[in-house]
Amino acid sequence: MSDKKPDWMVEVFITLKPSVLDPQGSTVQQALNSMGYENLTDVRLGKYFQLTFRGSLARPQVEKQVQQMCDKLLANPVIERYEFKVPPDPGSRRVSGRA
Amino acid sequence: MSDKKPDWMVEVFITLKPSVLDPQGSTVQQALNSMGYENLTDVRLGKYFQLTFRGSLARPQVEKQVQQMCDKLLANPVIERYEFKVPPDPGSRRVSGRA
Repeated sequence: MSDKKPDWMVEVFITLKPSVLDPQGSTVQQALNSMGYENLTDVRLGKYFQLTFRGSLARPQVEKQVQQMCDKLLANPVIERYEFKVPPDPGSRRVSGRA
Repeated sequence: MSDKKPDWMVEVFITLKPSVLDPQGSTVQQALNSMGYENLTDVRLGKYFQLTFRGSLARPQVEKQVQQMCDKLLANPVIERYEFKVPPDPGSRRVSGRA
């Protein structure tokens, strides 16, 4: 139960199922197309959560809790799907989003 | 200009700057804490875009256009920052979000 352990940094990605229309994404696409980006053929908009957990948790506990959170609150299972990334160790920097 | 080339699948992550308050994230955190997830110490909410470009573009063009799109439209540079990932080849599946 040491509080000295670095925290877990978890990333969650919520996206609309492919069969679900994405009017927000379409609007962004149209705006970008009209700005001259004609080679952009699709835009889908989703949500991106960064969750921080106490480092005292074990990795399987973190994975289990994140999955429960997605099922219960973060995602709407009727129209959305989710994916998440738990780093191998607490304190690892999140790996997504590097340019 | 072949239309046979697979498309580029680009991921863009928009997050609030660390100094900017995130009331939506705080609300989600409080909800999850009250559901019993007491080891969750922070939630930050961002946006996640999946952009599709024609495979006829070269990778540097794609990178340049995505960066321009972020600067001009997708992100608010005053309060947000962005990161993006262009895969090494068109047609590569996006790498983020694998559980």
